[in-house]
Amino acid sequence: MDETPGAMGTTASLSLRLGQTLFSSASLLFMSVGVEFYGYTAFCFLVTIMGLLIPWSATLAMVDAYSISTRCQLRLPSVLTIVVIGDLVLAILSLAAACASVSVVDLLVHIDGPYCPPKFCGRYQLSAAMAFLSWFLTAASSLFNLWLVASL
Amino acid sequence: MDETPGAMGTTASLSLRLGQTLFSSASLLFMSVGVEFYGYTAFCFLVTIMGLLIPWSATLAMVDAYSISTRCQLRLPSVLTIVVIGDLVLAILSLAAACASVSVVDLLVHIDGPYCPPKFCGRYQLSAAMAFLSWFLTAASSLFNLWLVASL
Repeated sequence: MDETPGAMGTTASLSLRLGQTLFSSASLLFMSVGVEFYGYTAFCFLVTIMGLLIPWSATLAMVDAYSISTRCQLRLPSVLTIVVIGDLVLAILSLAAACASVSVVDLLVHIDGPYCPPKFCGRYQLSAAMAFLSWFLTAASSLFNLWLVASL
Repeated sequence: MDETPGAMGTTASLSLRLGQTLFSSASLLFMSVGVEFYGYTAFCFLVTIMGLLIPWSATLAMVDAYSISTRCQLRLPSVLTIVVIGDLVLAILSLAAACASVSVVDLLVHIDGPYCPPKFCGRYQLSAAMAFLSWFLTAASSLFNLWLVASL
């Protein structure tokens, strides 16, 4: 079997997982520390999804690191299918959360009223940007693994 | 080569494409006829994406209908790859547009002010719901075709 780049157990996969963990943690921190996020449904959704994505990515990063260090590849189709489905679901949810947050921020900036102090708005925007980055990496992992499952 | 359900040239694929065309047209009509959508970035984005999705799905529905009637399967990997990439991009964009619209509607309903007359809000919500349905069908088409490309 030839090596699929980015599939589980490769260095590329480890980098993708570390990137996901990093960006989703950054998104969670920007949104939750010192900002009143709980007044808006979209922001609560973003915090929930990032809270799910961090342990998922961190666990798979550890699995990848173990595979690389022991040179023992985990290539059971059933396990890979679960990873692909989990990645796909989390990618869809994180895209949804990022888009919802960014559109709410855009609206808050443009309507009149005391809805968006500049300090808060900048942090909401940064958080949504980090969520987009973590979505992109999760979707990439998911597609690479799906390709591997289909070609097994 | 065995038949992949939902891949190009099958009856399931034709149904998916017709569903996409139907739901995206419904979403476009609910959003654009008699409603002031152009004041909100998210709604303009939804209209743009639905305007792209309708011709794409309608064209592929015609290709499927032709394949079924002549029993001549179009299975060139290069063509299938273009279809998969187009589907993936449109699925991502329509999910983004649907989530952005639904979060803006949710915010408009909850903040004070003359932002959301009941007649308009109901139509925005219906339009976003139709966009979600067309996203779901586009994503399904995309995954079925990706599976076929990977197993060719």
